[in-house]
Amino acid sequence: MPEELVETSEKETGRLEAFSDGVFAVAITLLALELKVPKLEENVNSQTLANALLNQWPGYFAFTTSFITVLLMWVHHHQILKHVRRADPPLMYANGLLLLLITAVPFSTAVITEYWRTPAAPAATTFYAGTFVLIAIAFYIFLMTAIRPALLAPGAAQTRIVQRFRRDYKWGPPLYLAAALAAPLSPLLAMAICTALWIFWAVSTKEC
Amino acid sequence: MPEELVETSEKETGRLEAFSDGVFAVAITLLALELKVPKLEENVNSQTLANALLNQWPGYFAFTTSFITVLLMWVHHHQILKHVRRADPPLMYANGLLLLLITAVPFSTAVITEYWRTPAAPAATTFYAGTFVLIAIAFYIFLMTAIRPALLAPGAAQTRIVQRFRRDYKWGPPLYLAAALAAPLSPLLAMAICTALWIFWAVSTKEC
Amino acid sequence: MPEELVETSEKETGRLEAFSDGVFAVAITLLALELKVPKLEENVNSQTLANALLNQWPGYFAFTTSFITVLLMWVHHHQILKHVRRADPPLMYANGLLLLLITAVPFSTAVITEYWRTPAAPAATTFYAGTFVLIAIAFYIFLMTAIRPALLAPGAAQTRIVQRFRRDYKWGPPLYLAAALAAPLSPLLAMAICTALWIFWAVSTKEC
Amino acid sequence: MPEELVETSEKETGRLEAFSDGVFAVAITLLALELKVPKLEENVNSQTLANALLNQWPGYFAFTTSFITVLLMWVHHHQILKHVRRADPPLMYANGLLLLLITAVPFSTAVITEYWRTPAAPAATTFYAGTFVLIAIAFYIFLMTAIRPALLAPGAAQTRIVQRFRRDYKWGPPLYLAAALAAPLSPLLAMAICTALWIFWAVSTKEC
Repeated sequence: MPEELVETSEKETGRLEAFSDGVFAVAITLLALELKVPKLEENVNSQTLANALLNQWPGYFAFTTSFITVLLMWVHHHQILKHVRRADPPLMYANGLLLLLITAVPFSTAVITEYWRTPAAPAATTFYAGTFVLIAIAFYIFLMTAIRPALLAPGAAQTRIVQRFRRDYKWGPPLYLAAALAAPLSPLLAMAICTALWIFWAVSTKEC
Repeated sequence: MPEELVETSEKETGRLEAFSDGVFAVAITLLALELKVPKLEENVNSQTLANALLNQWPGYFAFTTSFITVLLMWVHHHQILKHVRRADPPLMYANGLLLLLITAVPFSTAVITEYWRTPAAPAATTFYAGTFVLIAIAFYIFLMTAIRPALLAPGAAQTRIVQRFRRDYKWGPPLYLAAALAAPLSPLLAMAICTALWIFWAVSTKEC
Repeated sequence: MPEELVETSEKETGRLEAFSDGVFAVAITLLALELKVPKLEENVNSQTLANALLNQWPGYFAFTTSFITVLLMWVHHHQILKHVRRADPPLMYANGLLLLLITAVPFSTAVITEYWRTPAAPAATTFYAGTFVLIAIAFYIFLMTAIRPALLAPGAAQTRIVQRFRRDYKWGPPLYLAAALAAPLSPLLAMAICTALWIFWAVSTKEC
Repeated sequence: MPEELVETSEKETGRLEAFSDGVFAVAITLLALELKVPKLEENVNSQTLANALLNQWPGYFAFTTSFITVLLMWVHHHQILKHVRRADPPLMYANGLLLLLITAVPFSTAVITEYWRTPAAPAATTFYAGTFVLIAIAFYIFLMTAIRPALLAPGAAQTRIVQRFRRDYKWGPPLYLAAALAAPLSPLLAMAICTALWIFWAVSTKEC
């Protein structure tokens, strides 16, 4: 009987991971749908198309930033769940909240792509960074829900990686909040903070 | 030989779950495609963009309601199939009918987002709630097909969870029907019922 | 060494199935993107919205027909691969050709949705049925590639189900061709044949 | 302890493959979203619809070329990872870079579909081939990261297939670069090189 319990629980985690992977994979791929083919009304030639494609660089930049941020969240999601032995309803809901916000990333990315070079850039950047404040909070809740001793393998709560997760992840919400607050003053600074953050997440992942 | 039969059957359930997870994951992520970047014709500045983004709250509300409802259906789908040992054609078709209707949720969500604040709100809300009436019926058929003794593990039909599924799920169709019937009188009441329902599903899941 | 070979090969089939499931799941869910929210220019009220939603019935019909047809192809794809022990390049390419055509189903469904009630219905229906002629041919090639003795489990080639696949699937191309040829005379008859065909596939699956 | 390490690592590779498969599957299916239903303004009849559908052949050609190229990359990705025993951060990032570029293929395919028969064809084709130059470079980086001895099974670095990967894949970047350089002179030649390349990849896969 205890053996069956373990077996059932592992299967449950497996399907939670598979579903989350599906949502991450679809959300990350939908980002590219925001790359729009430029519409040239007149003077259709190689020069004008090349210019129009180059002029879309804020779109490519936002696409790349969002893609890498979501990818890193997937890597970390994956590293956290590796230590979790079973899923319970609170974990499923914390995970659901995280996924809800991640599926909204293509939307906030589209807002920044559309308004980055207009006078509305401060609002667009605040909105973009604000989405990531919510995501960082959801990620922190997800982490705290996942590493409850009841769900972890025996002894896993004391491992170096779980300790490090607990220490590092609490910086997510304030740092993205700083980006959101900087946005009305300087959209460029806000985007630079968002970019610096994923480089920081990437480097810190390298250490583990 | 019996061993191989069991093995083959479990593989079959696995792929049914994987495919369903894929459809659930894509459908839930496509919901976010209905969040449209506001188009500002003139007076593009941070104030107008912020207003336009805030004015889209019915879209965010419908997106959130649909997302959580589909997520809970996935959780329950998953809990049901955990008790099922093998898939047969009736289960595959009941599952297919459920998936067919779930893929239509982004469409009915888009209808409510578009018409929520127009004089057509009653029809839009009826349509939205009506979709969930069909989904609730399909879910009940799926449940009844899945928990036939031939497919369950020995003894699973008498477990508390299967008994609870059988008792709770029959309330889905009449409750969503109530929302659909309330919609012409008060779109707000209909949406409130839909929201109350997912909170109820979530809380009842917590108990298990 | 032979043991490792078997292990590697099974893993290969597993990933082929997982990838195919992903494409099937995404393609089947994208079908719903062709359900468009009706745009009401003026006179926005519940009556006009209800009429506009009801007037879209050819879209719902085409969506349902395509969804069920793709779902049945997924069920059969799954039943065929259950008997296959390993994947080799020809199987991967036959599978790729099938997936290529299946991802085009949302496109041909959109064509029929758009032009079903215009004078262009014959061409639209021919195009729709023609897509399924190609799919049925690809499915037959996929079947023949999959059930080569080199890939099957020992003895599987003589089983009743493989014999039945070989017998039934050769009817797909001529029957869809009949629908395509009927389309210029009667679009309704062509769609009726397509519908009758998925009912036939569903019923014949029920027997196995 | 070493046993647990191995187990954990294999799980990690499994989820890396599953996520990559998801992104490949979604990206390959999204290609079909670029097939647009022709809009006929007036004179809607079977003749005009048939002509409009036929006139879209560059779209079908670009869709097919991109689909098969992405499919072959998936096959090769899969063959490479079959030899990899564990995933580490560099492999995850090399894989992420590859996926980032692959999700952009529907965009570059849409550019070629839109501008193939306009005076902007040289720029469109350069952009399309240029995307594949980046992808070929990313694929080479991914290969080199994946076949580091630390990640491979003992002895796998000397196997014929790993040797062949190392030899063949270095031709990808220069060959796609040749296509990109040929594009301003002859868009047709550039597309012919892209087509010849996937035929070459397909044939070379057949040998393994």
